[in-house]
Order: sequence, then C-alpha cells, then structure tokens
Amino acid sequence: MPFNQITIIGMGLIGSSIARAIAENEVASRLVGCDNNPDHCDTARALQLCDLITSDPNEAVKGADLIILATPVGSYGPLGKLICPNMKAGAILTDVGSVKASVVKSLSPHMRADCHLIPGHPVAGTEQSGPEAGFAGLFTGRWCILTPPEGSDATQTAKLEKFWQALGSKVEQMTPEHHDMVLAITSHLPHLIAYNIVGTARHLEEVTKSEVIKYSAGGFRDFTRIAASDPTMWRDVFLNNKEAVLEMLGRFSEDLTALQRSIRYDEGDKLFELFDRTRRIRRQIIEAGQEEDIPDFGRDLGRHLDDK
Amino acid sequence: MPFNQITIIGMGLIGSSIARAIAENEVASRLVGCDNNPDHCDTARALQLCDLITSDPNEAVKGADLIILATPVGSYGPLGKLICPNMKAGAILTDVGSVKASVVKSLSPHMRADCHLIPGHPVAGTEQSGPEAGFAGLFTGRWCILTPPEGSDATQTAKLEKFWQALGSKVEQMTPEHHDMVLAITSHLPHLIAYNIVGTARHLEEVTKSEVIKYSAGGFRDFTRIAASDPTMWRDVFLNNKEAVLEMLGRFSEDLTALQRSIRYDEGDKLFELFDRTRRIRRQIIEAGQEEDIPDFGRDLGRHLDDK
Repeated sequence: MPFNQITIIGMGLIGSSIARAIAENEVASRLVGCDNNPDHCDTARALQLCDLITSDPNEAVKGADLIILATPVGSYGPLGKLICPNMKAGAILTDVGSVKASVVKSLSPHMRADCHLIPGHPVAGTEQSGPEAGFAGLFTGRWCILTPPEGSDATQTAKLEKFWQALGSKVEQMTPEHHDMVLAITSHLPHLIAYNIVGTARHLEEVTKSEVIKYSAGGFRDFTRIAASDPTMWRDVFLNNKEAVLEMLGRFSEDLTALQRSIRYDEGDKLFELFDRTRRIRRQIIEAGQEEDIPDFGRDLGRHLDDK
Repeated sequence: MPFNQITIIGMGLIGSSIARAIAENEVASRLVGCDNNPDHCDTARALQLCDLITSDPNEAVKGADLIILATPVGSYGPLGKLICPNMKAGAILTDVGSVKASVVKSLSPHMRADCHLIPGHPVAGTEQSGPEAGFAGLFTGRWCILTPPEGSDATQTAKLEKFWQALGSKVEQMTPEHHDMVLAITSHLPHLIAYNIVGTARHLEEVTKSEVIKYSAGGFRDFTRIAASDPTMWRDVFLNNKEAVLEMLGRFSEDLTALQRSIRYDEGDKLFELFDRTRRIRRQIIEAGQEEDIPDFGRDLGRHLDDK
C-alpha cells in the first residue's frame, strides 16, 4: 500500500470519487472521510465509502499520511488553521481545488515545517454534486495538475504523482499562477458564460421559459449542463481567481464585440473564417483522448445505432 | 402514402436524415434528392438514400408534391427563382432553415399562386455535416416549428404537420418573427458564444493550444461541439437573423458585464444567487424530454456503469 492512512475532507462528487477510486485501486490501508454536512456523512456511511466517516476535521486528519481537501476553496483557510496543528509529522496536505495561487496563499501560513503542502487539481468532474454522484472512474485518462511550491521536497511530489497515476490520471506540474491562467480559459470562463447565458434566457419577456425549454435542442441545452454545477464551489472559484478570469473575460468580450460588428456589417467572410477554424479544435481534443468520438455527445445513442 | 413524390434539395446532415426518415416511415412513394456537391450526390447514391439523386434542382422538383429546401438559407433566393416556375401545381414548398422571416422574404417573390409556401424548422441536429452524418431518428421527440405566412391554406399546413409527425416530431406553429426571436436565444446565441470562446482560446499567448486541449475537460470541450457545426450554414444564419441575434447578444453582454463587476468587487452573494438559479433549468429540460437524464452527457458511460 503506497499510503497507510488517507483522509479526505469533503465527501462531495470529487471527494467521494477519490474514496471509491482509492478503494478500487487499493492505494491505502485505511481511508477516513470527513464532511460538515450530516446528510453527506450518512450517505457516505451507507455507501461504505470509508473505514471511518466523521464530521470532525481534527479527528479525521489524525494519523493520516495524506490529507486531501475536497471542499470549496473558500473553506481552506479556516480548515488549514484547524487541522495543521493536528497533522502527523511528515504528512502531505493536498487538495483538488480549481484554483491554485489562492490555495497556496491561504494554506501556507498554517503549514508546519515537518509537513508538505502540495496543491493539486484533477481536471475532471460532472455537473452533479454530493456523495451519490461520485464514481471510481472519474479520473481515468484525465489530467491532474500539481503545483508544488518552490523549494518543496521532490520525493513527496513524486509520491503524490504516483497516487494520482494509481487512480488512472495523467499528471503534470506547473506553477500555481500558470495553472490559474490555463484553467481560466479551459474551465472558469466556460462556466461563467454558461451561467450567464442561462441567466439571460431566464429574464426575457419576448420568449417564455417554456419556449426556451422546448427549443433548447438548438444548442442552449448544452450550456445548461455546466450551468448546473455546484454554486458554492463556483462562487469560490471566481472569487479566488479574479485576475485571470477578468483577463480572459476581457479578451472574450473584445472578440465578441468584433463578432457582433461582423454580423452588423454583413461581413460574411470574417464569420466564415472564424467558424471554419474553430471546427478543427474538437477533432484535436478527440485525438488527445479528452473527448469521445461520437456526434452530439452520444445523445440518443440507441437511435443512432438502430439506424443505418 | 401521404405524398406521391417528395424532393429534398440539399443532402447534408438534415436533408439526408429526412430522406432516411421518409424511407423508414414510408411517407412517400418516390423520393428525389438533389445536391450541388458531386461528392454528396455520389455518397447519397451509394447509401441509396433516394430513388433519384441529381445535381439539377429543376429536374429534382419536377412532379414533386412536397419540396424541402435543406441548403444554407443564403441559397434560398436564387434556388426559389430557379425552381418555382417548374413546380407542380398544388405543390408545397417548405424548408428546414434556422431562420424564418428572411426565408419568407427571399422565397415569397418567386412563389406561384397555385403553390404553397410553408416554411419550417426542425429543431434538431448534430455538429456533424454531410450525407453520411444523417440518421432516421434525428427528429424523434424533437420539435418542428412551422411558420405559415398569413392567409395560407390551413389544409396544406395540416398536411405538412402530419409529415413531421410521421417523422417522429412534435409540431408547433408561430410567426416567423417570433420564431427568430426564440431561436436567437435557444440556438443562435449559444452557437455564437461557443464559436467565440473557441476563437479566444486559439489566440492566447500565455496558454498554449496543447494546454487548451489537455485541460479541456474542465468545461471548454463542451463548447467545441457546437463550434464544430457547419460554417456556411451558420454564417447564413447570423446574416439572416441579424436583428434578433444582436438584440440577444446585447442582453447577454449586459448581463456578462454585471457578472464581471460582481467578480471584481467580491459580490459572492450575487454570484451564488445566479449560479443557484441556473441550476434548475437543466432539470426542467430533462423533464420535458429534450435532454437525457445522465451526468456529463453520458461521457465515459461504460465507466459509470462499471462502478458502484
């Protein structure tokens, strides 16, 4: 067993998926789960996700070789203050948060010299939340980004890298600042504009909600998926990656204004050129194994297969 | 057989799907297909999609009781001028275009008094193009909107309604102007912002294309699907629904600016409130049968099913 005891704080989609993946891949002798929501604790117990489920973070981290924070990033500061004094000497503290510079900032002041802070981010998830929503295969084939602070112990980072590989992930290292810039475009901005268009659709007078729903197959329904993601988690992401998100949003809006102008002034060639170029990137994502090669996300798959 | 001969002009995703659905549901005695792309004609012949495949629209419409335009909407004016004089008396001319007011405008001048123009729009599709991409079940359970011009013959509209019902669609009638407003929010704006974010991602200096691809599972990959749609078709949609698209885009940008401000000034409550509200609409779309009830669009479905 690579680890004797692993403790996961937060038994939501990601935390509970890690618990399942640890069990399936036999990565720890003892698994402890912690959640401040009593319902989540009950569910996690019923699903037998861990050897021990507790709502007390201090009880949870006792004796753990690896502690994984899987709560909204806004909770890390208070959590770090609480648990760091009780961590076992030599333990690794990591997390799964979607932002990284702010995580370093909020956890570093509480870290002990005899423990190791190595923030991480498995780029995986679904729009669903809670312990029931998790599954062991969530990380298979997906990338996990580690952002070890400068001067951290390479042996410990290697251990954490092996942990994620054991769960099926591919692992990359980068600085927290670069992570936050990359994820601003590949994850945070997509969520922001998805939330925004769904919000815009809700407020129309000319088009009823029932019409939005009926005719959502025209494209809108795609956006409702990520706009159904956990609100607390995403509030914290935007508040904790403000600079990079605002930077990407500025570029997006600039490009959108140019596109708006092209529509207004009938610049068909410019529209065609953009639409033709964007087409190719999906193919590359499929070739990189980050998307399935099947039309319409495989919706109505049964019907596709029945037809010639 | 409800129709003796049906002619489909345009053998792409939609046209070829209609051909397959007509054959499967036995809606016509004779089916004629037409495409100005010789490769599409060859493929349609090889797939035996029609009784006759021709690249000559005039030959194609001869003797048809129902003619369906399934080419980019920008082609309708010239096509109408060409085929209307050769249409059979009493024939119905319809289409599948994603805009409707401009379709009425471009086809009406060419219509003969003894024929019937009833524009239509099946709200269905995938991001793929061409005759190979079609399938008979594409319209099953989806809505088809008909926009009969004022004073048109209700019997003919009822005939066309039955046609779409035979293909598995639910049918609704509305004015072309209302259609264009509804689709601007449920389809055109989603495509525009998907094309735009993919374009923005292509132009970054700080984040490489390889990083965009690797970490696209964070949300970005969802947008690449509709940004892979046919560029000619979508250029024509935006140029032909300019007013409604610019109106919706204005509202979207206004809302996005407010969201940007909330991020800049740490208004966590406002962010949470929006993110929490948008969550519910997906559930309603699923309940309305317009989306499958399965997380992450059913990606990696095999893995979900294997896990507990």
